[in-house]
Amino acid sequence: VTQLDPVPRRQRVDAQRNVEALVEAARAVFATSGVEAPAKEITDRAGVGVGTLYRHFPRRADLVKAVVRSGIDAVADAGPALSASYEPAEALERWIQRFTELLRAKRGLASALHSGDPTFAGLPGYFQQRLGPTLAALTDAAAAAGAIRDDVDAEDLLHAITQLCQPIPGHGAEHNQRMVAVLVDGLRRGAGR
Amino acid sequence: VTQLDPVPRRQRVDAQRNVEALVEAARAVFATSGVEAPAKEITDRAGVGVGTLYRHFPRRADLVKAVVRSGIDAVADAGPALSASYEPAEALERWIQRFTELLRAKRGLASALHSGDPTFAGLPGYFQQRLGPTLAALTDAAAAAGAIRDDVDAEDLLHAITQLCQPIPGHGAEHNQRMVAVLVDGLRRGAGR
Repeated sequence: VTQLDPVPRRQRVDAQRNVEALVEAARAVFATSGVEAPAKEITDRAGVGVGTLYRHFPRRADLVKAVVRSGIDAVADAGPALSASYEPAEALERWIQRFTELLRAKRGLASALHSGDPTFAGLPGYFQQRLGPTLAALTDAAAAAGAIRDDVDAEDLLHAITQLCQPIPGHGAEHNQRMVAVLVDGLRRGAGR
Repeated sequence: VTQLDPVPRRQRVDAQRNVEALVEAARAVFATSGVEAPAKEITDRAGVGVGTLYRHFPRRADLVKAVVRSGIDAVADAGPALSASYEPAEALERWIQRFTELLRAKRGLASALHSGDPTFAGLPGYFQQRLGPTLAALTDAAAAAGAIRDDVDAEDLLHAITQLCQPIPGHGAEHNQRMVAVLVDGLRRGAGR
């Protein structure tokens, strides 16, 4: 602890742990009880008091934003991790699977995200900025390995998957998943042309 | 001319020809000058008087609706015609190409179609009802020939292509086309699995 750092390290570590616990709890609660779920359901799950919630996230929008950002971060971080563990084409497919799960979770937050609250204004940019390069690294590696076609722009692909995951009236998410799988097959078919 | 048919046949044929000329002219004019183009531009192109336009299509919405319906009809009719001329997989690909052109033309009419005018209320149903079975016939034939995967629902595919053709901010339609091509490749890759 230096003179320039008046908050003891231990206290900062605790605060960081509380924030993470709250965001994780909120993600789970939003998924089951919706974005308007009672604060107590979230704090009980996180094992913190309601005062701690409101100190870190004064408004519900702040918590929603943190959930979305941490979801984007997790999927972005999964890119290098998958590349280290799998062949390029399989890493790409597994990442796309993770990405579609993120889109599905985001869909559950749509009422908040489309409310026009300026808290959310930066999220589309953050989404693009973190996930675009992640997907580009994966498609570049798979194309270099000759496993997928090499003329697909990662930004286009990110858009295309997002479009294919838009809800279809009267159909469940498995219909979206199937079409994403067909698109991924198309990437593979074009390999080496 | 029977007693039950007070309008002479010649007159009905002329009226039908005028309607067709007006719809074709309107399609071309909407594509270049937009859906609010002056009536005279349309009637000049159709070679009829403005009175004839307003007799058949009292409001602009009636003309827009006729243009959309005739576009849907043309693409639906192209299905059997393409099947008769090409191998099943090529007939399917060519039809999907026609279908994406229809979507692009419809996009130019979006301001009218999304105006909430009840004139357009039946169009989504008509679109689905005419194009769903057309695409199903094409995918069934291609799957039966072993040229594409056999587990794709035509209605899902129609939705997926429509989703992939949604405009991407800052990108031209060729980006959409490329992703549709990848999807079609994916249909082919799954053949015989």
